[in-house]
Amino acid sequence: MTISKEMYELGAKRSTIRELFEYGKQQAAIVGKENVFDFSIGNPTVPAPACVKESMIELLENEKSDVIHGYTSAQGDFEVRKGLADYMNNEYNCQLKADNFYMTCGAAASLCITLKALTASSSDEFIIIAPFFPEYSVFIKSVGAKDVIISADTDNFQIQMDLLEKAINSNTKGIIINSPNNPSGVVYSEETLKCLSDLLRKKSKEYNKTLYLISDEPYREIVYDGIKAPYVPALYENTIICYSYSKSLSLPGERIGYILVPDEVESSKDVYIAVCGAGRSLGYVCAPSLFQKVVLKCLGKTSDVDLYDVNRKMLYDKLTEIGYDCVKPDGAFYLFVKALEEDAVSFCENAKKFNLLIVPSDDFGCPGYVRISYCVDPEMINRSFDAFQKLKELYK
Amino acid sequence: MTISKEMYELGAKRSTIRELFEYGKQQAAIVGKENVFDFSIGNPTVPAPACVKESMIELLENEKSDVIHGYTSAQGDFEVRKGLADYMNNEYNCQLKADNFYMTCGAAASLCITLKALTASSSDEFIIIAPFFPEYSVFIKSVGAKDVIISADTDNFQIQMDLLEKAINSNTKGIIINSPNNPSGVVYSEETLKCLSDLLRKKSKEYNKTLYLISDEPYREIVYDGIKAPYVPALYENTIICYSYSKSLSLPGERIGYILVPDEVESSKDVYIAVCGAGRSLGYVCAPSLFQKVVLKCLGKTSDVDLYDVNRKMLYDKLTEIGYDCVKPDGAFYLFVKALEEDAVSFCENAKKFNLLIVPSDDFGCPGYVRISYCVDPEMINRSFDAFQKLKELYK
Repeated sequence: MTISKEMYELGAKRSTIRELFEYGKQQAAIVGKENVFDFSIGNPTVPAPACVKESMIELLENEKSDVIHGYTSAQGDFEVRKGLADYMNNEYNCQLKADNFYMTCGAAASLCITLKALTASSSDEFIIIAPFFPEYSVFIKSVGAKDVIISADTDNFQIQMDLLEKAINSNTKGIIINSPNNPSGVVYSEETLKCLSDLLRKKSKEYNKTLYLISDEPYREIVYDGIKAPYVPALYENTIICYSYSKSLSLPGERIGYILVPDEVESSKDVYIAVCGAGRSLGYVCAPSLFQKVVLKCLGKTSDVDLYDVNRKMLYDKLTEIGYDCVKPDGAFYLFVKALEEDAVSFCENAKKFNLLIVPSDDFGCPGYVRISYCVDPEMINRSFDAFQKLKELYK
Repeated sequence: MTISKEMYELGAKRSTIRELFEYGKQQAAIVGKENVFDFSIGNPTVPAPACVKESMIELLENEKSDVIHGYTSAQGDFEVRKGLADYMNNEYNCQLKADNFYMTCGAAASLCITLKALTASSSDEFIIIAPFFPEYSVFIKSVGAKDVIISADTDNFQIQMDLLEKAINSNTKGIIINSPNNPSGVVYSEETLKCLSDLLRKKSKEYNKTLYLISDEPYREIVYDGIKAPYVPALYENTIICYSYSKSLSLPGERIGYILVPDEVESSKDVYIAVCGAGRSLGYVCAPSLFQKVVLKCLGKTSDVDLYDVNRKMLYDKLTEIGYDCVKPDGAFYLFVKALEEDAVSFCENAKKFNLLIVPSDDFGCPGYVRISYCVDPEMINRSFDAFQKLKELYK
């Protein structure tokens, strides 16, 4: 093969989630959309809040074409970043400025750019906590670093500090956390984050190097039962936030998010400059301009999270009633359910027989579970219970 | 430095064009917007055609939020790619299908993804023809390949085939062409492209390997005097087109374009799969979903190119009258003018004294010239002539 074997393999394999998503579309064409129960992808079904459409129409009616659609600065429109800083300062009682923010084409771009900016050598390691979003591995390897995987405590899916302590060595560059978590739905407690911060500080001192905490927060606002996800930089100084509006504003296809490098980060300005360089080298000229302006006009707004909460309760209650085993999620829109056999891939293949599309946890680095996305039509959840029941009976 | 030195340097340097663009914004705040003559960036001022706004409002009024803003397939919405194939088949008499197209976040993404897909080894070389868009070098190096630069014939800015022949060796993976050209404004003649194809075929045979022609075509529709840019794959089989709607629909900030891998490309399906893998590894989840649907509804439409033509004639006529020397451009929206001293950087610094922001050609790999973007307000062109006159007088 004269082309890149690595890229060919990545393209040929694709992600299991995307594969299921495509399969679901094909299957819908055969058996009818209403007979496919697609819990595969985190594609929000709760509509974007009204401010999205309203602000878009307002911009289209009142602003000149080049103002709406023109290039912005590479780091994003200044007014947008300023508004974002003001909003965050008010929300989290911090002191951010426009130049702490770098607007991106969504969470994947935020992560790739951050990892590329931080990676200085092929021996650099980033720690990820299983179960994790499978693309983490792809992105870490793509920038030429090494992924080091440790397991979460499967009783509560919090971080196992002893395992983390053992995983940190002189090559460790940072750790990626994702809370509320995809796929477990668990929100890290302030206790967990405090222990994490203490450990990272201790290890930074031991190895005399900066350890970066990359906090991937696309689900920050998707939380239930009055829980609030903590502002991580207040707990650990070397935190870089990767954010996306994909879930909070139901705009996953629009590719809009940001990287936040607070002043408290060691050599913060250098890190920010490296982020600009990494964005440039990966071909990210600027974040989509219209949606930069839209998110400015929608600060503090979210899609109706209560609707996900209805789905969460309905699905959790029924599945546990049928006899499935899972931790009740505090955030995001996933149930992480124990498979009814050891091999989750085989279990999910069986699920397909009932047109039930659920994702085996193997790609999340934590075998034996399935991820069930409940950012779906509640009617579909209702229609799917029979299939879940039949799947359970198959294992009697 | 514990972070990436390479990314830091790329971020610290930034592109000269972007630097001037930022300087222009700052200077406008000091001396007034009307007194700054910013010819630095290719940010289209001719508004997007009416179909852009109309189709956006139609989509917002009639389609569900998740249909408009949801994830599309990684390669882009099928209907969009199908529509694109039909349009191209009709326009260029070819036989393309949806699966020849991969939708991207604009030309920079198209190029980065294509280069990453093709590069198999650090010895791989891509040839670029000076003057060239400076980010070509950044993108080629970013995927771990080597850029090899040859000069165009500065009498007419066509390719010097003898130089190209010498530059091709066993490491050559491909060549990037850009016609209509940024920064020269020249459109490659069919004669040039035929000679190029013959040479590439001859050399492919000699080295027994595929040589890819990457045709970067954001200016394809920005042509004057009845000229039409040829459909390059009809002339050379191993052509991959990188396209962007930034210029043709005046949507540079929205980041929407595509990669076209025709069936005629050697192992076409494998190349397409590697493109999918490369997009994934660089964090491009999908091209912005709303604008995918917008470009489908605007197929065949462009911004009003006649307005650029007015600018072209006005600026070309006046500058040559004042005594500047340049080739009359057939396409794009740039004049490539001989600097009045050997050092174009120093010349452009002098131009700044008159608040005239023009880009030295050094970064385009062809010293001694300046690039003047005329995708600007014609009133600004009129106001700028005095500054051009004074700059000329400085060199008497």
